[in-house]
Amino acid sequence: MGISLAVHEARIQRVRDGKRADLALDRVVVEAPLEIRLGGVPTTVVMRTPGDDEELVMGFLFTEGLITRAADVVAMRRPEGLGPAEIGNVLDVELAPPVVQLRKPQQRSFYASSSCGVCGKSSIKALEVNAPAIKSALTVRRSLLASFPQRLSEAQAVFEQTGGLHASGFFRPDGELVVVREDVGRHNAVDKIAGWSLARGAVPMSDGVLVVSGRLGFEIVQKAVMCAIPIIAAVSAPSSSALDLAERFGVTVAGFVRGSSMNLYTRPERVLLDQ
Amino acid sequence: MGISLAVHEARIQRVRDGKRADLALDRVVVEAPLEIRLGGVPTTVVMRTPGDDEELVMGFLFTEGLITRAADVVAMRRPEGLGPAEIGNVLDVELAPPVVQLRKPQQRSFYASSSCGVCGKSSIKALEVNAPAIKSALTVRRSLLASFPQRLSEAQAVFEQTGGLHASGFFRPDGELVVVREDVGRHNAVDKIAGWSLARGAVPMSDGVLVVSGRLGFEIVQKAVMCAIPIIAAVSAPSSSALDLAERFGVTVAGFVRGSSMNLYTRPERVLLDQ
Repeated sequence: MGISLAVHEARIQRVRDGKRADLALDRVVVEAPLEIRLGGVPTTVVMRTPGDDEELVMGFLFTEGLITRAADVVAMRRPEGLGPAEIGNVLDVELAPPVVQLRKPQQRSFYASSSCGVCGKSSIKALEVNAPAIKSALTVRRSLLASFPQRLSEAQAVFEQTGGLHASGFFRPDGELVVVREDVGRHNAVDKIAGWSLARGAVPMSDGVLVVSGRLGFEIVQKAVMCAIPIIAAVSAPSSSALDLAERFGVTVAGFVRGSSMNLYTRPERVLLDQ
Repeated sequence: MGISLAVHEARIQRVRDGKRADLALDRVVVEAPLEIRLGGVPTTVVMRTPGDDEELVMGFLFTEGLITRAADVVAMRRPEGLGPAEIGNVLDVELAPPVVQLRKPQQRSFYASSSCGVCGKSSIKALEVNAPAIKSALTVRRSLLASFPQRLSEAQAVFEQTGGLHASGFFRPDGELVVVREDVGRHNAVDKIAGWSLARGAVPMSDGVLVVSGRLGFEIVQKAVMCAIPIIAAVSAPSSSALDLAERFGVTVAGFVRGSSMNLYTRPERVLLDQ
């Protein structure tokens, strides 16, 4: 992701020690709408940090259940003839004909869904997650897992400059950092990782650990379940519905992963104490 | 908001100093879907922390532009005959007949909108904010403004226990804290404040300062503009689109309000240096 896309400079008044300093330039994280069109029809808007847009759209379509594999997307195009606010912020997706057919009856509810996987849906029943339970026998050593948030933070290109971005990373249980993505929306960062993996034929992602920089909400677990990720580690607190979903689908959740401490909320057996 | 609604206890494995401690109970912030029905028709779902649901719905309908005053809502009811996942999580809103009529042509796009004011909308054009520019001559002393985040934090009932909730507060420029609300979703906390104010005839909210506990995104500024709030202070970073919108509508944005420092991004003249 180019820094130029994710950060821009704003003219600000700094106040320090109660005194107004001179005008200064400050880096601000870029947040802009991305309009996703399906076959030319405006379908949904996600507020995202520009960069990796194709991955974001691919991951979003997958974690929302509209596609099941990369080949379901025939092409993505930046349409011509856009207005000033739309330039760079519209992607038109051509789905494979069978997917278009298959999805016709459900299209209506997809139209009302959204990038965070929850808001915009019209009923509680529409929140149901359609995926198999996670049976993975994957384990990870506690000390390695404990190191992932710091390594995620080090890998973040933009965060240090603006303080405004969430990060997600996918790690192997041997410690390899596979991919990191950032976004103003934490669910977008996860969708970017899902899209990146899908394009490489690396979904299901049963062989690794998803690490998120902040809180863990329902929508992140939902996306992880769609990707069959067996372990999630969060720097901050999980919510009750995130834990309910994790318990139901068999996902290990570690929260408050800081230094040598963490809380294991669900399926703790996948985290191995060090010998 | 009752603590019992906002927090529940989860059985966890604590790991401290690399060693697994005994099973313990930990407080987890409750996140649950709220299905909003209009005239009996399921319309949208927001993921929220239970408590102040009526305020949330009132504020959401207002900041999304579906209603313009409290009297537009004739009644809100908890329907009967719900399934187990729905009990306590559905509110059916009866709108005044003129509102129902007025909104018919736009209903379709409202159906696709969402609590965060962005995702779920189907096109970038649908993001347009329909509100007048903010002309308020309100000012606030820097030292008072600097004290608001700490006072917001002290007023938070739940955050200290779980680390999982965002807070928003509305302050008068003389320092009075008018109302505080918490939620897993920062936009929900603002909608709860908007709904609380609306029910008291206190909108437009031209006479105060909105303080938010975390980052400042587009959707928060959007909601503030709908409420005519002239000053927003955030503990963390604003995004580019938040600043664009604030600039366009004449909202003062202070970010990184911490101790005796803050950054003034837009309309700094409303923040008075101390003599």
